[in-house]
Amino acid sequence: MKLYSYWRSTTSYRVRAVLNLKGVSYEQEAVDLVAGDQSSADYKAMNPGAGVPTLVLDDGTVLTQSLAIIDYLDATYREPSMLPAKAIERAPVLAAALTVATDIHPVNNLRVIAQLRARYGAAPEQTQDWMCYWMAEGFAALEAQLTEKDGFAFGDSPDLADICITAQCYNAHRWGLDLMRFPKIARIEEACLAVPEIAAAHPDRQPDAPQT
Amino acid sequence: MKLYSYWRSTTSYRVRAVLNLKGVSYEQEAVDLVAGDQSSADYKAMNPGAGVPTLVLDDGTVLTQSLAIIDYLDATYREPSMLPAKAIERAPVLAAALTVATDIHPVNNLRVIAQLRARYGAAPEQTQDWMCYWMAEGFAALEAQLTEKDGFAFGDSPDLADICITAQCYNAHRWGLDLMRFPKIARIEEACLAVPEIAAAHPDRQPDAPQT
Repeated sequence: MKLYSYWRSTTSYRVRAVLNLKGVSYEQEAVDLVAGDQSSADYKAMNPGAGVPTLVLDDGTVLTQSLAIIDYLDATYREPSMLPAKAIERAPVLAAALTVATDIHPVNNLRVIAQLRARYGAAPEQTQDWMCYWMAEGFAALEAQLTEKDGFAFGDSPDLADICITAQCYNAHRWGLDLMRFPKIARIEEACLAVPEIAAAHPDRQPDAPQT
Repeated sequence: MKLYSYWRSTTSYRVRAVLNLKGVSYEQEAVDLVAGDQSSADYKAMNPGAGVPTLVLDDGTVLTQSLAIIDYLDATYREPSMLPAKAIERAPVLAAALTVATDIHPVNNLRVIAQLRARYGAAPEQTQDWMCYWMAEGFAALEAQLTEKDGFAFGDSPDLADICITAQCYNAHRWGLDLMRFPKIARIEEACLAVPEIAAAHPDRQPDAPQT
C-alpha cells in the first residue's frame, strides 16, 4: 500500500505509527503541504478534502481521514489493537483521542492559519499564540480526563489516544508550548517515543523531512 | 440515562438522533452555551473540555465527545446500526462523517468565533463569512466523496455520515449557506428529516429551544 503524507502533518504521524505498530509495510509518497501539492487536481481526485494522509490499498481502494484509515487498519490487522474491545472501556480512549482530533488539531490546521493571515493579517507571533492557545485548552481538558498512572494513557500498550496525543506533542514542541504544565501528557509522549515503531513514525525521521 | 445538551449544538443533535433511532429513552438537561453553563465548575468536573453533549449512564458513568458516545451507543444498542460491519465499507462512511466532525464543525465552534472576536475584533458579518467559508469548503469535499443515488448517503437507512451531515445542515441554514450548490447533501438532509426519529432530534423541537 502507499501512504500519501507530509512529514510534519500530525495526522500523517498517527497513521504511520499505527502502520508501524502493526508491522504493515508501505511506501510513502510526499505531499508537500507548504508547496501546495495537496491542491493539485490529481491529488484532489483522490482526496477531495485536499488533506493528508491518503492511504491507497494494493487493489487501488483510496482511504482518507486519519481516524477512518486507522479504523480500517485496526479491523484488518488486528494486533496490536488500537482500542479496547469492550464499548465501555473504549469510550474514554475515544474521547481522549477525539479531544485531540476534533478540539485541537482542526483549529490549528495550516489552512485555518492561512485564513487568519488572509482575513485578519495575523502576524507570525499571533498565529503562534493561536496554535498554543488551542493546544493549552485541549491539553488541560486531556489532563483532567487522564488518570495518574505510569506509561501509556489507559492500558499497558499504546492505543489510539496515545497515538493522537503523541502526534499532537510534536506540534506543541514545534510551536513552543511548554509540556511541563501537562505532566500526564508529557509522560505519555515519553512512553510512546520509547516504542521503536512509534519513534520511527516521528516527523524528523521521514524521507521528506529536511536533511540535517 | 441523562443527556446534557444544547438545542442548537450540532454535536448534541447527532447524539439525540442516534438515541431516537435506537429507541433509547433519555432525559435531557439543558446546557446553555450562550449563557456559559458549560464553564461552570460542576459541568467541567463531568466534561473537562466544557463541550456538549455529555451522556451520563444510569450507573453514573460519564461519556463525552459525540462520536465516542455514538460508538458506545452503537455497540450497546445494536439496531439499527450506524456503521457497516465490514471495515472496507465502513471506511467511506467514517471518512464522510469525519469530514463534518473534523474539517467543518470544530473550526466553526462558538469558542472559535469568540476568539475571532476577542483577537481580531471580528464583526458579525465576518464571523458569518467564516462559518460559511468552512461549510462550503467541507461540503464541496463531501459532494465529491458521495455517490449519485437516492436517499441516504451510503445505504438504505441512516448511518453516521447521514447524521453528521444532517446536523451540519442545520448550521448551514442558520448561517445562510445555500445548499442548492450541494445537491447530494441537500438530498441526504431531506431523506433524514423524513425519518421521524431524526426529525424529533432537530434543534427546533428541543425543550430548551425558544418557544415560538
